[in-house]
Amino acid sequence: MRAIVVNEPGGVDALEVVDRPDPEPGPGDVLIRVVAAGVNRADLMQRQGFYPPPPGASDILGLECSGEIAAVGAEVTGFAVGDTVCALLTAGGYAELVSVPAGQVAPVPEGLDLVDAAGVMETACTVWSNVVMVGRLQPGETLLVHGGGSGIGTTAIQIATAIGARVVTTVGSEEKAAVCRELGADVVVNYREQDFVDVLRDDPPNVILDIIGAKYLASNVSVLAPGGRLVVIGLQGGTKAELNIAALQRKRGSVTATTLRSRPADEKADIVAPTVENVWPMIAAGKVRPIVHSRFPLADVAQAHQVLEESSHVGKVLLTM
Amino acid sequence: MRAIVVNEPGGVDALEVVDRPDPEPGPGDVLIRVVAAGVNRADLMQRQGFYPPPPGASDILGLECSGEIAAVGAEVTGFAVGDTVCALLTAGGYAELVSVPAGQVAPVPEGLDLVDAAGVMETACTVWSNVVMVGRLQPGETLLVHGGGSGIGTTAIQIATAIGARVVTTVGSEEKAAVCRELGADVVVNYREQDFVDVLRDDPPNVILDIIGAKYLASNVSVLAPGGRLVVIGLQGGTKAELNIAALQRKRGSVTATTLRSRPADEKADIVAPTVENVWPMIAAGKVRPIVHSRFPLADVAQAHQVLEESSHVGKVLLTM
Repeated sequence: MRAIVVNEPGGVDALEVVDRPDPEPGPGDVLIRVVAAGVNRADLMQRQGFYPPPPGASDILGLECSGEIAAVGAEVTGFAVGDTVCALLTAGGYAELVSVPAGQVAPVPEGLDLVDAAGVMETACTVWSNVVMVGRLQPGETLLVHGGGSGIGTTAIQIATAIGARVVTTVGSEEKAAVCRELGADVVVNYREQDFVDVLRDDPPNVILDIIGAKYLASNVSVLAPGGRLVVIGLQGGTKAELNIAALQRKRGSVTATTLRSRPADEKADIVAPTVENVWPMIAAGKVRPIVHSRFPLADVAQAHQVLEESSHVGKVLLTM
Repeated sequence: MRAIVVNEPGGVDALEVVDRPDPEPGPGDVLIRVVAAGVNRADLMQRQGFYPPPPGASDILGLECSGEIAAVGAEVTGFAVGDTVCALLTAGGYAELVSVPAGQVAPVPEGLDLVDAAGVMETACTVWSNVVMVGRLQPGETLLVHGGGSGIGTTAIQIATAIGARVVTTVGSEEKAAVCRELGADVVVNYREQDFVDVLRDDPPNVILDIIGAKYLASNVSVLAPGGRLVVIGLQGGTKAELNIAALQRKRGSVTATTLRSRPADEKADIVAPTVENVWPMIAAGKVRPIVHSRFPLADVAQAHQVLEESSHVGKVLLTM
């Protein structure tokens, strides 16, 4: 089968189309004939050598896909050959076939195109697990999500709005600001023009979903509401920063840092199940509308990565087989 | 009534016995004729000027007491004049009378002396809220509690053991180590002889209850188990330290910093109720035995503070009226 790997970490030229043996599904796995794969920022970090796959995982890129089931392991129930599905992957989505534990597979959400479904799993699971399961966002509370124009951002705005929370978001352009407002964000801060700390001084968020890390740590702690929960899922702004524990204590606040990819399969399944149970009906009802920026054929993977690197897009970038 | 206040922050000589008007209970309050009051490290910090009472609270020292109910507000149900009780206070325990919201009052635990009951509320509520409600310690998991010989430490060891968790603790003397082992601690680290990071490298705790703060932040994060929860309730080792967010993310860990005192009355009540429901039966069954180090008459409050300052005691220090 055709697949995308990186032999020497580097720029978009480091992406190589190679021929690999077809994967063999284990007894608890589903084999998917991939129709499309989502492109995530983590894939760019892996390409650059900063985010190696967990031990035992394939070196083929790709954290999510959609497709048709080509085979099911002996122990798998609830799925059959020919079902159209989407999946949360530890690796291997940029390929014609991928084998994945059945607990990380879900039906295509009602009303969604099979290709677009490739870009739903990673963002929906990331947002649901971090904003709701870890952050415990409640109706009437306020969520601050940094990077409102990203796949994570557009999904977080819509899910938080759907559960009855207020949403504040930061973006880097007026074009992204307009999209975020249209998706339901109550307050949009253009970080090139305003400091979100100033804007939120009298409007403190109960939950913050952060992709920046070190650079925003002090600011995030300083704006948290009493009892607030800061959830860091990305470190685009560095890994180490001073934490003022006294300031966090005055808020009775928490800082949690998570990743989805390194979790064992049973924990991924424990995230996929409630995500599907809660978010798929929101998609079916039109309350959460996955935003797709562009689709590229597998051979044009370098162009797809280029779009994410330029960071001017809104929504997901997909690869089609 | 007689009460203890601090006019000029300072050493133990700053503690003054004064005469104050009797407090008037509000409609939701209970007036307690104090029999004994617990002495907490926070009282020492308040005496030194580092921990002012929250806005609106009395300047009389004291975060917990036991005694007999002298009056009940019009809206109070479930308590009557003459009941013997213990209470979690925002201030005012070092006095002959104190008024407190009824939600912060509980019956004296079965099997416990009325004087010893004065030292139960602050530690039991602190441990239950932080280890179980915030830290979500589960049976079979491991708790690391720093300062095993303190009131918090001896209580945490026993409560965690009672819920079926393993307990690791740090202490500064062999005498304290022996007490901690006797109370159920599985591993005791004398921090004067060993680095707890070395001891726990292959025995990572799921929950850490920490009173040190900055000085231990990096070490605490480095020993956390995957999915581990660090709960900081004291800052004896400083307030600011570098947080390695990437290290926390590799653990999928959290850092929460809390205080009990600054919470509003309804949140205190939401802590007192489950603490009484869960910990009082443990006390009645002999699984949790409040450790009392010494009792001092109110007029000897300076000596009581001196004991905590020297930090060689094990268990609670109490003042009697």
